[in-house]
Amino acid sequence: MENFTYFNPTKIEFGVEKEQMIGLYLANHNVKKVLLCYGSERIKREGLFDVVSKNLSENGIALVEFGGISSNPVLSTVRDAIMVARTQQVDAVLSVGGGSVLDSAKAIAAGVQYQGDVWDLFVGKAPIQSSLPVFSILTLAATGSEMNTYAVVTNEETKEKLFIASPESFPKVSILNPELMQGVPRDYLVYSAADVISHVIEPYFTASVQPKLLSRLAESVINTVVETTEALLTDPTDVAARGEFAWAATLAQNGLVFTGAAGFSYPNHAIEHALSALFNVPHGAGLSVIIPAWMKWYHSRNTAQFERFAKNVFGVMAAEEGIAALETWFNKVGTPTRLSQLGIGESDLPAVLENAMGNIRIFGMEDIYSQEAVETILRNAL
Amino acid sequence: MENFTYFNPTKIEFGVEKEQMIGLYLANHNVKKVLLCYGSERIKREGLFDVVSKNLSENGIALVEFGGISSNPVLSTVRDAIMVARTQQVDAVLSVGGGSVLDSAKAIAAGVQYQGDVWDLFVGKAPIQSSLPVFSILTLAATGSEMNTYAVVTNEETKEKLFIASPESFPKVSILNPELMQGVPRDYLVYSAADVISHVIEPYFTASVQPKLLSRLAESVINTVVETTEALLTDPTDVAARGEFAWAATLAQNGLVFTGAAGFSYPNHAIEHALSALFNVPHGAGLSVIIPAWMKWYHSRNTAQFERFAKNVFGVMAAEEGIAALETWFNKVGTPTRLSQLGIGESDLPAVLENAMGNIRIFGMEDIYSQEAVETILRNAL
Repeated sequence: MENFTYFNPTKIEFGVEKEQMIGLYLANHNVKKVLLCYGSERIKREGLFDVVSKNLSENGIALVEFGGISSNPVLSTVRDAIMVARTQQVDAVLSVGGGSVLDSAKAIAAGVQYQGDVWDLFVGKAPIQSSLPVFSILTLAATGSEMNTYAVVTNEETKEKLFIASPESFPKVSILNPELMQGVPRDYLVYSAADVISHVIEPYFTASVQPKLLSRLAESVINTVVETTEALLTDPTDVAARGEFAWAATLAQNGLVFTGAAGFSYPNHAIEHALSALFNVPHGAGLSVIIPAWMKWYHSRNTAQFERFAKNVFGVMAAEEGIAALETWFNKVGTPTRLSQLGIGESDLPAVLENAMGNIRIFGMEDIYSQEAVETILRNAL
Repeated sequence: MENFTYFNPTKIEFGVEKEQMIGLYLANHNVKKVLLCYGSERIKREGLFDVVSKNLSENGIALVEFGGISSNPVLSTVRDAIMVARTQQVDAVLSVGGGSVLDSAKAIAAGVQYQGDVWDLFVGKAPIQSSLPVFSILTLAATGSEMNTYAVVTNEETKEKLFIASPESFPKVSILNPELMQGVPRDYLVYSAADVISHVIEPYFTASVQPKLLSRLAESVINTVVETTEALLTDPTDVAARGEFAWAATLAQNGLVFTGAAGFSYPNHAIEHALSALFNVPHGAGLSVIIPAWMKWYHSRNTAQFERFAKNVFGVMAAEEGIAALETWFNKVGTPTRLSQLGIGESDLPAVLENAMGNIRIFGMEDIYSQEAVETILRNAL
């Protein structure tokens, strides 16, 4: 076990109808006027917006709308929202949506409190010293953003997809009502499964110090995701499975499965971010392509852990069999495993490689992930 | 999944030499004068007291000593400490020790802020409305008190062993340095193992709603405790095993393994508290006696989960085989499995039964745990 600090003050309100308490949760934090961020108009058509706005009103909280946040959220939208938040003098940000809306909300909340341009916070020009309080009603479980400090945004001018992380950015309260996630389309469900699996297997396979307890927790998450994804593909109204999937997604990225691990990295994220920055592919779909390709290149560096994964997740013996089983499972549930399925061909590789190497350098992983190595991984995915 | 709220704001500082930062952690919370609670003089002989007092002094924090807290901590000591804390006008309480010292510290911190007698808070005469901030340097891992709201104290006049639990009682910062736990005697290590296992198997077996994710997390904790206890019996200086044992103990009782479960109860704790209240036996030793006796009585009510336990913890098939395997394991590592090993005989049963039934009523479990049922369980343990 390596030394670590674990601190996660986000309050999770999990369960049916919890969104009907949102006004109270904000009032408990003395919020008077909130920027309500969302994506498509779906939350209006399906009635969630009305539930939230009525409840805020009943608690004396004024509401400023900011809709239209896209998946793979972009910097220009974050900048626009910061302008609105400043003009309207909101004192909190509420995300109603999935990880893209919530990541934008975190960036907005930190950006409002920073005098310069918000992108400075992503490129390390300035630290996040304060943030408006962030609240979340989650409608898609994948990123774990509801219980961590991370926010990923793409600068569409520079084609950089980067992240911020500050203790200031923990959501104060996150509401996870599995019933609100029942409308998630089949394709986004399986992309989300790939994303959650990636969050635990990146540290699981790459850590130089990996306590067995953490491997067990990681496998608990993966096995739950595999099982509940299959259950939800059979019956999207299975609220119990939807709930377990959502909670597994939260635990995958709330810091718990890394506690006491050391020397781990996120090469699959570094490479995938190039795909979604350049081609706007869904993050999870990009990951399910990169992961098997990366595993084939990487596994001999940590054979014992790949054998452990093979046995404890898919009930097979050899490292290669475990990798094949995961790739087969991705194919079975319907998330892509080839760049061609994303419309990316061999001629695109130089641009992907250049962008990915930018991320590799930001993450400080050039020692292992040379240009040749990343090219090999990308070619594995063709 | 049942609805739940998960909120745990304790900051864990895990690792070697972290106790050398204690002054800074207290200073970050504006502490000026702290009541330092401890048990035996061992922390002075072994140098920990000097490290802490020097570090507090360097950070300008005054120190008031309160030693002599026993295992199975008693109310009279808590009352004495509250008097000292008030007289000396401390603004925080620091526990240096195991769960008994920390539970006392929580009771002291809450009691100082309450105008009446602290026992009112245990019997439900008054709620805990505020508490001095509590900090902890843990020297024995077992109770999980370092990351939860619970504090268990025995009223030696009434022979009641009861608990408090309030969000006010979360420690602000808990330091877990596995090297500070290397001096834990062999018998207390195995009692602690039984305690940690009990914390997860009580909800694991008794919940009416038990998501599989939670069963997996519980098994991760149990398997880690089994494995690391054996490693530590072979080599008490195995810091990696000591660390994993400690972190498993924390996760067992920080609320995580109950999230989304429903209808669970703590019958083994309710019965065991009678043993430690009446005979001052170590809590974990009492539990390792009660658990197999309870399992033999209870298992047919939840056969599938007992079969799951048998398979995933001990690699055997039948519910009864799993129970036998746990009892054998308790015997192997050297924690008792019979009341006679605690010096408790058949003639003591009426007194134990009466005290246990008092706890059963407080926990509201009379519907399942009739006097006849509890007597059967106790006779299984003779």
